[in-house]
Amino acid sequence: MTLEGHHLIGFTSQGGSTDGGGISAINPVSGETLAPLYPMAGQTEVERACQLAEDAFLPYSRLPVADRAAFLEAAADNIDAIGDTLTERAMAETGLPKARLEGERGRTCGQLRLFAEVLRSGDYLGVRIEDALPERTPMPRPSLAQQQVPLGPVAVFGASNFPLAFSVAGGDTAAALAAGCPVIVKAHSAHPGTSELVGRAVQQAAKSCSMPEGVFSLLYGSGSELGQALVKDPRIQAVGFTGSRNGGAALLRTAQARPQPIPVYAEMSSINPVVLLPQQLEANAEALGDAFVASLTMGAGQFCTNPGLILALSGTALERFVEQAGAAVREAAPQPLLTPDIHTAYQQGVAQLTDQPDVSLVAKGKATVHLACPCQPHLFRTTANTFIGNDALHDEVFGACALVVECDSVAQIQQVLTAMEGQLTATMHLEEADYAMADQLLPLLERRAGRILFNGWPTGVEVCHSMVHGGPWPSTSDSRTTSVGSASIQRFLRPVCYQALPEALAPDSLKADNPLGLPRQVNGKR
Amino acid sequence: MTLEGHHLIGFTSQGGSTDGGGISAINPVSGETLAPLYPMAGQTEVERACQLAEDAFLPYSRLPVADRAAFLEAAADNIDAIGDTLTERAMAETGLPKARLEGERGRTCGQLRLFAEVLRSGDYLGVRIEDALPERTPMPRPSLAQQQVPLGPVAVFGASNFPLAFSVAGGDTAAALAAGCPVIVKAHSAHPGTSELVGRAVQQAAKSCSMPEGVFSLLYGSGSELGQALVKDPRIQAVGFTGSRNGGAALLRTAQARPQPIPVYAEMSSINPVVLLPQQLEANAEALGDAFVASLTMGAGQFCTNPGLILALSGTALERFVEQAGAAVREAAPQPLLTPDIHTAYQQGVAQLTDQPDVSLVAKGKATVHLACPCQPHLFRTTANTFIGNDALHDEVFGACALVVECDSVAQIQQVLTAMEGQLTATMHLEEADYAMADQLLPLLERRAGRILFNGWPTGVEVCHSMVHGGPWPSTSDSRTTSVGSASIQRFLRPVCYQALPEALAPDSLKADNPLGLPRQVNGKR
Repeated sequence: MTLEGHHLIGFTSQGGSTDGGGISAINPVSGETLAPLYPMAGQTEVERACQLAEDAFLPYSRLPVADRAAFLEAAADNIDAIGDTLTERAMAETGLPKARLEGERGRTCGQLRLFAEVLRSGDYLGVRIEDALPERTPMPRPSLAQQQVPLGPVAVFGASNFPLAFSVAGGDTAAALAAGCPVIVKAHSAHPGTSELVGRAVQQAAKSCSMPEGVFSLLYGSGSELGQALVKDPRIQAVGFTGSRNGGAALLRTAQARPQPIPVYAEMSSINPVVLLPQQLEANAEALGDAFVASLTMGAGQFCTNPGLILALSGTALERFVEQAGAAVREAAPQPLLTPDIHTAYQQGVAQLTDQPDVSLVAKGKATVHLACPCQPHLFRTTANTFIGNDALHDEVFGACALVVECDSVAQIQQVLTAMEGQLTATMHLEEADYAMADQLLPLLERRAGRILFNGWPTGVEVCHSMVHGGPWPSTSDSRTTSVGSASIQRFLRPVCYQALPEALAPDSLKADNPLGLPRQVNGKR
Repeated sequence: MTLEGHHLIGFTSQGGSTDGGGISAINPVSGETLAPLYPMAGQTEVERACQLAEDAFLPYSRLPVADRAAFLEAAADNIDAIGDTLTERAMAETGLPKARLEGERGRTCGQLRLFAEVLRSGDYLGVRIEDALPERTPMPRPSLAQQQVPLGPVAVFGASNFPLAFSVAGGDTAAALAAGCPVIVKAHSAHPGTSELVGRAVQQAAKSCSMPEGVFSLLYGSGSELGQALVKDPRIQAVGFTGSRNGGAALLRTAQARPQPIPVYAEMSSINPVVLLPQQLEANAEALGDAFVASLTMGAGQFCTNPGLILALSGTALERFVEQAGAAVREAAPQPLLTPDIHTAYQQGVAQLTDQPDVSLVAKGKATVHLACPCQPHLFRTTANTFIGNDALHDEVFGACALVVECDSVAQIQQVLTAMEGQLTATMHLEEADYAMADQLLPLLERRAGRILFNGWPTGVEVCHSMVHGGPWPSTSDSRTTSVGSASIQRFLRPVCYQALPEALAPDSLKADNPLGLPRQVNGKR
């Protein structure tokens, strides 16, 4: 499959001007520029993609769910069928290892297939029905029925760190398409070739399944121009974004300044605190140190759930943990960061931490001259009072960089957790003898995080029904939803109530004899 | 029960300065000022109410749901027990008739009791559980469980037009308290005495049920000072508001400009289109005209769901409808508007419509000198092209004022519906011979409105499980939720996932043997 370097707009593939500069991927291992050169979308491309999406919305949203499910499955099959071409291009563009990318491809296709199941089960429609009570006094009750309907066309921003699972056909795209919303993807500029390959797989599925043309488009361009133009467009009704805090906040401001504000689901920033409770730490300090550094350095630490903050009580057990973790950091093999920009930001973040008063370096990883964008992992330490008093220590450093915060009491751990911003995850390592202390911390963790782990590490995010990958600001812009798992379809839905709906006009989901066999709440009972 | 004219902050009742002016209700029938004079809350009162709410949050949110349910029921019992004192004060402050206020009191107490039921059923927790798969390859799966948790302290703004059901102990307060969120109410300045009576009933219930002190506070003050201060306060985590478009938009801007933005559920503006389909109109033009005017003039038209826009095809049937409706408007008895401000805005809105080109007055109601703030109902007519071309005709005029829009084809009805902003409701009057046309309109109505009615009038809003009182911007600021019915509890919740949660630390809702008997989704099945 040859890369064309074209925007995919509806069923067409079209080049564009690269006069003002185009987009090329850079291999973060070798530093080489990868062909082809991709054009930058302008107002013409945005207009056409948005109008096609708008035109597609009503027909697409009203298709039988089985047809939408078949489309998602065809997209998954097409992505699988690209085979090594996809993983090899993704390796070249991201520097991520093959096994990781194969796993990520499986996850991406699995997400699409999961949403096909979600559609067929129909639970996501949230049907509630109340029968008419014509004899009720003083006023009769008409029949009432509620179900979820899709919001409208959605703009999705590909993320740098998951070139498949949070990108062109990633979680937000799968959830929005499942919900019945056409999707326009802004490709991440770090992996345009991977984006094109996946985009063509989705485009081909849309064609072969006879979807309305505008159900999917893929555009290349900058965040400040293409990204802003999409979020401003009145036809776009919701936005999915995974990236930096500044990037997410800028999109949110634009969305809120529209004549009609729209929801923005931005995942932005998290340092993912891990609390080591004393009995567990005493029993397993060295094993915890090794496991922590394995999680910290996986994928050069480029995960939104990377464990960036360790909290524990002072003492010899903590010193054993720090010593072991420091040794593991020093031994960690250098890995490539995804892009030159991320490399620069990592270096700046590390330098900023190094410069903070009362913060000391525990260890750093090996340097290398063999990578264009290397990550040299860093581990720092400080005290609770220093952490609480210095907001600069609360910022995420994207990449393998963490801070151990030494606390002198449970109360001080509680103060640190209270001073912290919202997080995607929070973790406790504990054994039974720690449960009483854990009971005191759990309410604070629930308030600050979307997922709470016990005796695990936050870097794995299971795609399932119970997952919450989300959390209070600034980890996300909307703590009421998740970006991973079947519940993420709710991002792109809103409820509608039908009052005294004639049976002949009722969609199958609301018909009296329930022809789709949906799970429904009827008169308050399931 | 004597009115004290005091803020209710936690379990205390405290006066305040009225040096800079205070708040007095005005009887809109007689124009007389009603004692007592209420103080205006300043930073001291906001600080104390917010800190108490913050302190109450964790203990309140972690109470057994049965305790929260008992508190809601005690509040309902206490409101009922105020008896005629409450309805009489509300009549004096609003000019609304006794029967309406008695009905509204029943609805208000019914809402509180409905949420007690919702709590006991536990469905609102949305529990999803997935068991561990320790043998899974290549990676084992930890156990995962998701449930909803409350957002934190909530600020609720009382609405002018429902002094009980959308005010101190109205829908948002009931939903937030049920969700586990402490509530601070900003009393609407038009009915401070009604607010105090209801506030004391809730305060007394909180005391007698041994709730944490800060679970409820009631403050008096202006939107620009007290309202803004509450929305800016970092301890407030969500806002419920029903009122004007300008007022809602101002709160939204403030909430979004916070270092940590928060959700604002503002219900603002809706003209509630009603489409009269041709066969039904032909058969029942006169009856429809009478029923329309009854809905239009009920409560002087001061409903967010007031039918402000009639759409129909030109022809003799429409002329019969207009003639009948015009006659009914001319006969409509004058009724008081709620406040001098609403009276002024109504007069301005009517004057603005009168001045628009190609808009003609069909009829207006009787004038009166016996009311301080009279509503003289108005009915206007225009053409579809005029409506589509003039945004001023799309604005809500709060009160009994409506516009008939004459269309020359179904396509033109579709154009009008497409040109329209988001609405709380949309209605079709139809008979079987109209179903084919209704099928063409229904998708457009679903896109524009939160509730779609058939052969009814939108002014009644049933409190039940299936209701959606919400809709796309500007009818509300967040179309993904409802402000009426049991689903409104979701406004104040967010999901949390627990990974490998030890059974000993699990809340009852997530324990393996389901001691609360909750409806739960387990491994993808209910």
